[in-house]
Amino acid sequence: MSGHDIGASSNGGAGDDGARRRSPAEEARTLVSSMTVGYLATVGEDGAPWCSLVVFGPTFAGNPVLLVSTMAEHGRNLVHDPRASLALNDPAASGDPLDRPRITLAGRVVQPAEETRQEALDAHVAAIPGAMLYAGWDDFTLWVLEVQRVRWVGGFAVMETVSAEDYRAAEPDPTQPVAAKSVAHLNKDHRDALLAIARELGGTRGAVAAVCTGIDRYGIDLSCTGAGQSAAARVSFDEPLQKAADVRPATVALAKRARELQGG
Amino acid sequence: MSGHDIGASSNGGAGDDGARRRSPAEEARTLVSSMTVGYLATVGEDGAPWCSLVVFGPTFAGNPVLLVSTMAEHGRNLVHDPRASLALNDPAASGDPLDRPRITLAGRVVQPAEETRQEALDAHVAAIPGAMLYAGWDDFTLWVLEVQRVRWVGGFAVMETVSAEDYRAAEPDPTQPVAAKSVAHLNKDHRDALLAIARELGGTRGAVAAVCTGIDRYGIDLSCTGAGQSAAARVSFDEPLQKAADVRPATVALAKRARELQGG
Repeated sequence: MSGHDIGASSNGGAGDDGARRRSPAEEARTLVSSMTVGYLATVGEDGAPWCSLVVFGPTFAGNPVLLVSTMAEHGRNLVHDPRASLALNDPAASGDPLDRPRITLAGRVVQPAEETRQEALDAHVAAIPGAMLYAGWDDFTLWVLEVQRVRWVGGFAVMETVSAEDYRAAEPDPTQPVAAKSVAHLNKDHRDALLAIARELGGTRGAVAAVCTGIDRYGIDLSCTGAGQSAAARVSFDEPLQKAADVRPATVALAKRARELQGG
Repeated sequence: MSGHDIGASSNGGAGDDGARRRSPAEEARTLVSSMTVGYLATVGEDGAPWCSLVVFGPTFAGNPVLLVSTMAEHGRNLVHDPRASLALNDPAASGDPLDRPRITLAGRVVQPAEETRQEALDAHVAAIPGAMLYAGWDDFTLWVLEVQRVRWVGGFAVMETVSAEDYRAAEPDPTQPVAAKSVAHLNKDHRDALLAIARELGGTRGAVAAVCTGIDRYGIDLSCTGAGQSAAARVSFDEPLQKAADVRPATVALAKRARELQGG
């Protein structure tokens, strides 16, 4: 309309710009490793479904570890039929619940073999410290949900099936534990750097403001505004990050590169 | 130990003090009417359970109304087997997720009869305004979950089965929409009144501080401290409240009664 254009890559936020992002398998592994509360579907003796809240710890290539009582209906159901499905959706994420990334895992529960029992119990207790209280009670059973199917939903009408092999092979994003804090820090203290990154590296040359909307091991997401428009941009790190402590130097490096281009 | 005693009723928080509280059926109806997001268990063609996030609106005596796509696995499952179970747990409540009140509803979904279809759709859209966008799409089906069983969990190892009849007959608590705000207001601006209520009406004569921890149509819950102890107290309103706007005059009346006793 105006003849001006903010200049974003046309699909900056949608994943068609060639920038590397977490795969659905990585998204699923990351979500499982960052949560401890989910909802479990089991079936009763009559085959009817039953849904209930459970807490879990992840271990063994993303297989959740449950510790449930036979006083609970789902605990009795699992003894009778080991098939189970666990749904996770981070309630701390903002926005419409149907737009938030979520997953469903399906498989069957098994009691861990003697040699892995302690490791499974430790994984559960590490995630759920209160479980120490009842871990030894007679009516509680330790179960590992062996994942056979994974369904990842990225948002409304964005979904993908992940094979059990891909799920097991994928790594949880090591930057996830610090991602939210890093985003908040950049937006609070480094607006100028974000704008330089958006303009010089994100392709939104007409941007006058940029807000960081996400960080993961592969790069950062920006929401840019300018020329009466807004556009998403994705900027990759030089290398995939290997640990949470890599986030800070990697974002500093992006800012430095952007400022050098700005000056040149 | 000290010879002093804060003086709380010994089971002030546990419900054995004769004060009226919401029944498990009322708790369940109140939770359903105050939430729009839950997790649904369905079964696939092979009888395996599947768990997924759904949004809903409540209507028809607490029967949730779903609008789901056959693009989603749970949508296909319901077409094949109408049995379903919905679990709800308010993520906004604080504390250990296993200590928070929650419910599971179980029953079967039916498509509403022609004469109630619009009412069901309106109930869903009132709760989920975004559903207007896809309510008319071919792949979406409107389902009413006819509740046949209700399991209420009040916290760790506190649970009760509620009959479908009791569930349907119970009223959602009309004060629920303002309860959290009222609690915050009392704790921010009316500490003296809360202390007077605790000492004069709550039986915690030795209290030196009182914090409101809950309000419902039947009364208020207080956490009281004094003499190196803490104790819960429950104080009933004169009459069960009939609407949200009754909370303010009812708490003012309690404070007035407590101050009169204090002065007498």
